[in-house]
Amino acid sequence: MEREGRKRVGKERMAIILHGGTLDKLFSVLNLASAGAAMEMEVHVFFTFWGLQLLKKSYMKEADLPPEHRDLKAFIDKRIEEMGYPAPDEFLKEAKELGYVRIYACSQTMDMFNIGREDLIPEVDEVVGAASFLIIASEADITLFI
Amino acid sequence: MEREGRKRVGKERMAIILHGGTLDKLFSVLNLASAGAAMEMEVHVFFTFWGLQLLKKSYMKEADLPPEHRDLKAFIDKRIEEMGYPAPDEFLKEAKELGYVRIYACSQTMDMFNIGREDLIPEVDEVVGAASFLIIASEADITLFI
Amino acid sequence: MEREGRKRVGKERMAIILHGGTLDKLFSVLNLASAGAAMEMEVHVFFTFWGLQLLKKSYMKEADLPPEHRDLKAFIDKRIEEMGYPAPDEFLKEAKELGYVRIYACSQTMDMFNIGREDLIPEVDEVVGAASFLIIASEADITLFI
Repeated sequence: MEREGRKRVGKERMAIILHGGTLDKLFSVLNLASAGAAMEMEVHVFFTFWGLQLLKKSYMKEADLPPEHRDLKAFIDKRIEEMGYPAPDEFLKEAKELGYVRIYACSQTMDMFNIGREDLIPEVDEVVGAASFLIIASEADITLFI
Repeated sequence: MEREGRKRVGKERMAIILHGGTLDKLFSVLNLASAGAAMEMEVHVFFTFWGLQLLKKSYMKEADLPPEHRDLKAFIDKRIEEMGYPAPDEFLKEAKELGYVRIYACSQTMDMFNIGREDLIPEVDEVVGAASFLIIASEADITLFI
Repeated sequence: MEREGRKRVGKERMAIILHGGTLDKLFSVLNLASAGAAMEMEVHVFFTFWGLQLLKKSYMKEADLPPEHRDLKAFIDKRIEEMGYPAPDEFLKEAKELGYVRIYACSQTMDMFNIGREDLIPEVDEVVGAASFLIIASEADITLFI
């Protein structure tokens, strides 16, 4: 088993598990990934369970708020645009161009929901299981479950 | 106060605070704990607030999805079984047999909800407060709040 | 860019991102911050998205449970009081008096929701962006997203 947590390429490493599937959590992940990449951190994001659904083609830009906050969706969409943020799918592309951001799709979740690699957006770098991601995370300076 | 974070027994240490009480979060914790144990990590899981309820006898296998996803419960139960995963209470037992997985019940939550040690499943290793768990977590390579 | 993660003042450092805005998550943050401060940890809490709303004047003590648990609000309020915990806004003040607890308001969220510094409680130490908080978090022993 690859025990070194892979070759270190950034000054610091952040490992994020995105388990939630709502826009507010996705936006936080994209914001953290973008901020980390801009400061030369390595950013590794493992999309699992509800979060994995966001990697399906054309799903990311449809991400909604949790039910109790859905009345704020139009307002937040407007503010995100006014503040100059791109839509989530574009935001992910830009974060990847900005620095070292790697996207992992959880293989167990894909199996559970019968999702194939061909169903996912091309920004996914690897399909891996939880164990593989834990190796990467164990060498991280910041670990977050979102 | 015990400041050494206790004797190190695994190659790496993962410390998880399980605050949520839903099946999707519980399943992620069990999956991470099982994967960690299989790769000789130490896994320490502190069950608090809604998560603590899952440690009450016969509650773990009743864990449900959050309200907005409850229509998926039957599908996910079926897939979990088809994929060969045991029910959550059995999954926890198996993870503990697989490696070093320690289960902590939050004493403040037990006090809040008037739950006694005798109400909890035997897989609980210790009843501790947040401060005690922070000492363990401060020596961990991976820290997650779920 | 300040790359040293700021001067270290505590034995250990805990960095918490509070993204949720509900009482159960706020209470956990306050409990962890208080426990950490009492054991001479540095505690840094970044309030963002729904969590940022809690820093608005007089909002913290109005924090509610998530919709699916709201029937427990009166019970939990009563138990919190019986157990000798102060109300959340007082709990925060006491944690700050107990040790090193620093409160950060997320500047991007303030911009998104048109919230000014004058709208926030005086316990806020700094208004910062995600990048600044990541520098602090990258030197932490415990990192949590709540």
